[in-house]
Amino acid sequence: MSEINRQWIFSKRPSGPVDDSTFEYRESPRPEANVEAGEVLVKNLYLSFDPAMRGWMDDKPSYLPPVAIGEPMRASGIGQVIESSRPDLPEGSLVMGFLNWQEYALLDSNNAAQLHVLPEGTPPAMALSAFGGTSMTAYFGLLEVGRPKPGDTVLVSGAAGATGSVVCQIAKLKGCKVIAIAGSAEKCQWLKDDCGVDETINYREEDVAARLAELAPMSINVFFDNVGGSILEAGISQMADHGSIALCGAISAYNDLEPTPGPNNLMILVARRIRMEGFIMLDYLSRLDEFNTEFGTWFMEGKIKTREDIQQDFANIPATLSRLFAGKNSGKQLLKLADPR
Amino acid sequence: MSEINRQWIFSKRPSGPVDDSTFEYRESPRPEANVEAGEVLVKNLYLSFDPAMRGWMDDKPSYLPPVAIGEPMRASGIGQVIESSRPDLPEGSLVMGFLNWQEYALLDSNNAAQLHVLPEGTPPAMALSAFGGTSMTAYFGLLEVGRPKPGDTVLVSGAAGATGSVVCQIAKLKGCKVIAIAGSAEKCQWLKDDCGVDETINYREEDVAARLAELAPMSINVFFDNVGGSILEAGISQMADHGSIALCGAISAYNDLEPTPGPNNLMILVARRIRMEGFIMLDYLSRLDEFNTEFGTWFMEGKIKTREDIQQDFANIPATLSRLFAGKNSGKQLLKLADPR
Repeated sequence: MSEINRQWIFSKRPSGPVDDSTFEYRESPRPEANVEAGEVLVKNLYLSFDPAMRGWMDDKPSYLPPVAIGEPMRASGIGQVIESSRPDLPEGSLVMGFLNWQEYALLDSNNAAQLHVLPEGTPPAMALSAFGGTSMTAYFGLLEVGRPKPGDTVLVSGAAGATGSVVCQIAKLKGCKVIAIAGSAEKCQWLKDDCGVDETINYREEDVAARLAELAPMSINVFFDNVGGSILEAGISQMADHGSIALCGAISAYNDLEPTPGPNNLMILVARRIRMEGFIMLDYLSRLDEFNTEFGTWFMEGKIKTREDIQQDFANIPATLSRLFAGKNSGKQLLKLADPR
Repeated sequence: MSEINRQWIFSKRPSGPVDDSTFEYRESPRPEANVEAGEVLVKNLYLSFDPAMRGWMDDKPSYLPPVAIGEPMRASGIGQVIESSRPDLPEGSLVMGFLNWQEYALLDSNNAAQLHVLPEGTPPAMALSAFGGTSMTAYFGLLEVGRPKPGDTVLVSGAAGATGSVVCQIAKLKGCKVIAIAGSAEKCQWLKDDCGVDETINYREEDVAARLAELAPMSINVFFDNVGGSILEAGISQMADHGSIALCGAISAYNDLEPTPGPNNLMILVARRIRMEGFIMLDYLSRLDEFNTEFGTWFMEGKIKTREDIQQDFANIPATLSRLFAGKNSGKQLLKLADPR
């Protein structure tokens, strides 16, 4: 076990995209847990990279406090408990939670209580993708916010991403027609071949608005939007009466310096009685069992395909975050730090 | 009874605001109803002027077909049946429906069946304002789409308008705190004195975003928006977690030549889990009884104040529509053509 703890510290709030000044590499002695006080020391194995992380960097009120300057960057991860006297978190157990950009995470009693212990035998990378927050976001966002009925047409943007690709597959399992928007021919092919979507639109090469007008003229019942901006606007134009738009995020705008104008066609929401609703996966944590039952069954039956894009090397952590915003990742963006003991 | 039927014909689709070329004055012989075929002739008494009328002029798919060029402009109105052999529409009865910009409306059997007979003793102007679609829009939009709880903070834009002022009063009756945005000191005073709102913002003289940040920092639970544009954006900024936005319309943008950008802060819908939903009063026509019971009681008890802005003279019909978009009306915009027999 290393005597040092490598960390990437959040050193400067970015205006616009993250750059070299946003994070600072630091080494400090590996911490020790005061196990009598309920503290836990976790060795990080995998880190998760999520579009929402860009929002956590802004000094704005949101569903989580902004990341503090001088602290390791906040990130979900999988780790292994290496010092603990807690019966709920025995040494050796694999846990998921906010473990942040560092090799070792020391959690006080309150934060330790927020960790989730992985069920025996779960592959750690899967816990962050197929079984993790990403799939929960897809599951609850689509079913509880979008609420498609069998036979509905479901539009998914950012469809080759970790969340989007699972949304596509859940919609297919629920008997919907799925139109997927993604950013490369390869991604579109994968969505057709592996995820079973009905139609794809490559937004880098095709006119999304025109293609939607062809594929689903005023007949999109549910739109699961990960992207925002012009893609959201194009989707709104072809919504069916009484449709719904589940707003998961807006990766197209996270790095903008100035706020970008919103869709210019919101009057369609009135004329077609559209519900557009934002959601946050954390609100559904109490319904984890429900998710595990239905989604877990699909997964075990091989009905959900996922891709993980697993980068390596502690030094690559900031660059791995940038892959996400450049659309370079194919599937869930992860970085592996270590194998479990 | 006049032998001629004066009409304002929709002659040219406007791009931008309505102008002198949009409507054309025409006189034709007064029609006669084929009463055996179920036709009905109605003499128009009052016309209603509503922001939605601008949308009906555009050649775009919407919840009603676009008004056809060469036909009288579509408008709700109150009239008196003067030729009929229908038991459901006896001669002399006062009716409400699409009677359009003309002195006499000849309705075929299908259209006649869409008319609503006013309950005995209803003052005709009231049927278009306090008891009409305007109040139904306020009632169902606020309660079914906005869904405020007692103690909630409710923001209303276009608050001195016919719909907005009723929304404010229903929200007060439901135990909410109400912030009203309107366009003159006089309108704000009326909202405070007669409608009982808690706070007002005069958008022509005050910085709406700054005032909302003071009055309800991130604590607007329900926003009933009639205006769109920058007012919608300002309201979104101060929404509380899990709030709702009932989109009734966007009078600020109806006359725009080019689509105007939407709110630049839709990510707040995600971070605060906001539901933004459009609605159309016509969807609630089947629930008229419900409305009559609760709202009618309030009205009879003097708990709802309304203002009617009643213009006169057939020649003034187009100019009266323009009053709405200039914000010149105080309360429900009507034009009186005749008294009932």
